[in-house]
Amino acid sequence: VSAPRGFGDRLQAAIDAKGSCLIVGIDPVLGKLPPEFCSAGSLSAWTDELVHSVAPFAVGIKPNTAFFERFGTDGWDALDATCRAAREAGLIVIVDAKRGDLESTAEAYADALLGETSQVGQWADAVTVNPYLGTDGLKPFLATAGKLGKGLFVLVRTSNPSAVELQDVLDREGKPFYLRVAGLVDRWGTDLVGESGLSAVGAVVGATAPRQAAEVRAALPRTPFLVPGYGAQGAGAEEIRPHFLAGGRGVVVNSSRGIIYAHQKDAGRPWQEAAARAAERARDDLERVRLTC
Amino acid sequence: VSAPRGFGDRLQAAIDAKGSCLIVGIDPVLGKLPPEFCSAGSLSAWTDELVHSVAPFAVGIKPNTAFFERFGTDGWDALDATCRAAREAGLIVIVDAKRGDLESTAEAYADALLGETSQVGQWADAVTVNPYLGTDGLKPFLATAGKLGKGLFVLVRTSNPSAVELQDVLDREGKPFYLRVAGLVDRWGTDLVGESGLSAVGAVVGATAPRQAAEVRAALPRTPFLVPGYGAQGAGAEEIRPHFLAGGRGVVVNSSRGIIYAHQKDAGRPWQEAAARAAERARDDLERVRLTC
Repeated sequence: VSAPRGFGDRLQAAIDAKGSCLIVGIDPVLGKLPPEFCSAGSLSAWTDELVHSVAPFAVGIKPNTAFFERFGTDGWDALDATCRAAREAGLIVIVDAKRGDLESTAEAYADALLGETSQVGQWADAVTVNPYLGTDGLKPFLATAGKLGKGLFVLVRTSNPSAVELQDVLDREGKPFYLRVAGLVDRWGTDLVGESGLSAVGAVVGATAPRQAAEVRAALPRTPFLVPGYGAQGAGAEEIRPHFLAGGRGVVVNSSRGIIYAHQKDAGRPWQEAAARAAERARDDLERVRLTC
Repeated sequence: VSAPRGFGDRLQAAIDAKGSCLIVGIDPVLGKLPPEFCSAGSLSAWTDELVHSVAPFAVGIKPNTAFFERFGTDGWDALDATCRAAREAGLIVIVDAKRGDLESTAEAYADALLGETSQVGQWADAVTVNPYLGTDGLKPFLATAGKLGKGLFVLVRTSNPSAVELQDVLDREGKPFYLRVAGLVDRWGTDLVGESGLSAVGAVVGATAPRQAAEVRAALPRTPFLVPGYGAQGAGAEEIRPHFLAGGRGVVVNSSRGIIYAHQKDAGRPWQEAAARAAERARDDLERVRLTC
């Protein structure tokens, strides 16, 4: 049995085939959804329509587990159905869980969120992870990702204002902490670099800190970046230019609120059309940068 | 309506009342459980008996969400039942989730894992959180904890070997990163200090690094510590002496494998008795240190 195709290769092929690096973040808050979806039991009906509305314009989706966990087992069922619908629509599924724990615990998370027989994991292509515990915490994720042709995105430099408090602390050589983390990401990803030159081990690098992003990109020439902070969080497409590799490769960009709640600002049309139009506009906006890198 | 009693006060009162600082970590792996519990559907039957077996000797339990998420909705139901059984047995419930995310996402996690109406959250007294995103990520947890009289334990210095890779990095003043995190923990906990002098914002400080623990304790005189690494992970009770405040206050110590899998090394008796005896021995071992601090 040959090894499955690596996640880095699959991700870049999907971007090229779709002509889009847009990831739609799925972070449902009941009171903000169209009014017909007013209970946890209706979440998967909403995500099913949402996925089909944005699928022509997005390369993938990124459901955040928090918004599903809030609804207990109903929420976990909805997360499962969401990931399944996206996979069946040919989209890349990034489970945004930001998990980080040790040894057998990290193994259980890798199994839950990437495993072939787990409820959510079976539909997932990649999961986000937190680096704070170091290599011990990553090993089980690396093993699972390698075995199943799946991927990780390690938090390196996030998009929020207080990211500076810890991530930007300078070490004795004047090197910021996020570059320490980047060094580990490069090491963790070395054995999982595919034919495209991209590793299955990616990095989360926010759109709101382009200077830091340029440094991280220089340190990580083989690492796919998952970029939050675009759109409703404040960054424009130009601020993501430093994240791309030459030829506009190696980047996917998340937009959540600007797409999933587009109906709130575009009340004249059905919510599905509002989401589709917002996804199309985001794709076009990002393509202008991606295709000129 | 007066504010609920703070978590720091409740935790210390529970330790004093029980005469124990032992927390039993509940990290179920199916193949290691007694053979009658061989499926995800039997998890809650096992945890129910386990909770009742250890309740006389432990002040609380710490289920790790990873080992339940692995089983999807069945697992989430079992986590809920486990937390409920422990609360009904008068135990403190610390949900070990190590979550860390931003703004509305952190709010959703706080709701899921501490909220009054959430499936798991309603039974939880405290949750573990990851500090990597800084204050933005902690605010919603602080708000929920304050409002409901619940607590947090922030990862500061973990017990695993590769904790050194990032947590022990020195900044330009030669201060290790874990003390930077400790500084934030102190600030986050300031408004939630109760009559006991202990805050609702605790810290995770491993038993395997007593030198680092002494530094963290000196920086955090009002912070309850949750201490992993005792028992099967290698540290003895003496190595936890630096974690305690004067009078043996402000510390709970986790043991998982040494208790929940005690039947594997004590095959001559029913598994429930093996777990109870292991919990009793751990309590006594820890009390010798706690009562001489």
